[in-house]
Amino acid sequence: MEFERIVKERYAAKSFDKRKIPKELVDRLIEIIRMTPSSYNVQPWKIKIIEDDETKKKLMSASYNQPQVETCSHLFVLCADIDVEKNVDKIAELMIKEGVEKDKANAYSKMVKSFLKSLSKEEIIVWAQNQVYIALSNALNGAKALGFDACPMEGFDPKEYSKILKLPKNLIPTVLCPIGYANDKPRKKIRLTKDDIIF
Amino acid sequence: MEFERIVKERYAAKSFDKRKIPKELVDRLIEIIRMTPSSYNVQPWKIKIIEDDETKKKLMSASYNQPQVETCSHLFVLCADIDVEKNVDKIAELMIKEGVEKDKANAYSKMVKSFLKSLSKEEIIVWAQNQVYIALSNALNGAKALGFDACPMEGFDPKEYSKILKLPKNLIPTVLCPIGYANDKPRKKIRLTKDDIIF
Repeated sequence: MEFERIVKERYAAKSFDKRKIPKELVDRLIEIIRMTPSSYNVQPWKIKIIEDDETKKKLMSASYNQPQVETCSHLFVLCADIDVEKNVDKIAELMIKEGVEKDKANAYSKMVKSFLKSLSKEEIIVWAQNQVYIALSNALNGAKALGFDACPMEGFDPKEYSKILKLPKNLIPTVLCPIGYANDKPRKKIRLTKDDIIF
Repeated sequence: MEFERIVKERYAAKSFDKRKIPKELVDRLIEIIRMTPSSYNVQPWKIKIIEDDETKKKLMSASYNQPQVETCSHLFVLCADIDVEKNVDKIAELMIKEGVEKDKANAYSKMVKSFLKSLSKEEIIVWAQNQVYIALSNALNGAKALGFDACPMEGFDPKEYSKILKLPKNLIPTVLCPIGYANDKPRKKIRLTKDDIIF
């Protein structure tokens, strides 16, 4: 499917029909998300994927009982990972493995760590969460490209999610992306005009 | 081009060859960006598109002299628009125009405005900027889908940009997306493994 069709035809599904998406397609969606670009290539995200009905039920009240959470095939909980120095080290290692000179990989690591040190913890969270939204977009478009549906959801209680999912402190649940086969029909897309958004 | 190929093959171009992208393709990219989903569908963004060499030159020092700004065809300055109530009113109007019942459009407007009132100005900026990153992702993938290149850039001085571009106070320059025909070759994509990001 052409990208222009994907962005036009995808929509925020209000509920799903509980059918399971085949593992092969879920893996292809993960691969699409994995390709997401990010600031300094730090990829400050981790995604908890929830498949089982019991956990979904536990999350319902922390999701303000929105039906997508209980009826989806897989619930992707996109978390910002603020333990970013660990990522920088891993990426520098991967660079060397891929043939980048050691000096260059070390310079990359030094530069990024110095950038990160210039930020407060609060600023790192904001910065990391910004990047998570790029990954969200790939997840939403990727779902449509692979023949199923998704819904971006900010309406949930991150603190409750952390508790229920026993997340480590470095992970901040940022946005949900339930995926599945939609049980509703898309309504007409309402968007501001070109003149409203371009100047 | 299939979406999976787009996300694999797009990359952050380090410089462009100064060729102009035809207007028809730029318009199609704008249309792709216009389709971007956002929280409560508020679309809290405005994009300044810069084509002329003089303005690009003026922005160079505020862009830390990164060559993408001067060599691109069009520089998209993605701004968060924090004058969000205006958007909500416009969207409610568009809903009615598209056949949504007046009561439902009014209920939408009331709910979103009450949500926005619950946020501080600082929180509105963070929330709006998060949404801008979804639009950024569509811009990056859209460029590749349409046969040209782009580069996501956080490395610039937003305050200087505001001054030089004489932006109104409600617009916060958030991220740059220069587009053009790349003058460099993509390097091997370095990404964390599936096991690093999924749990």
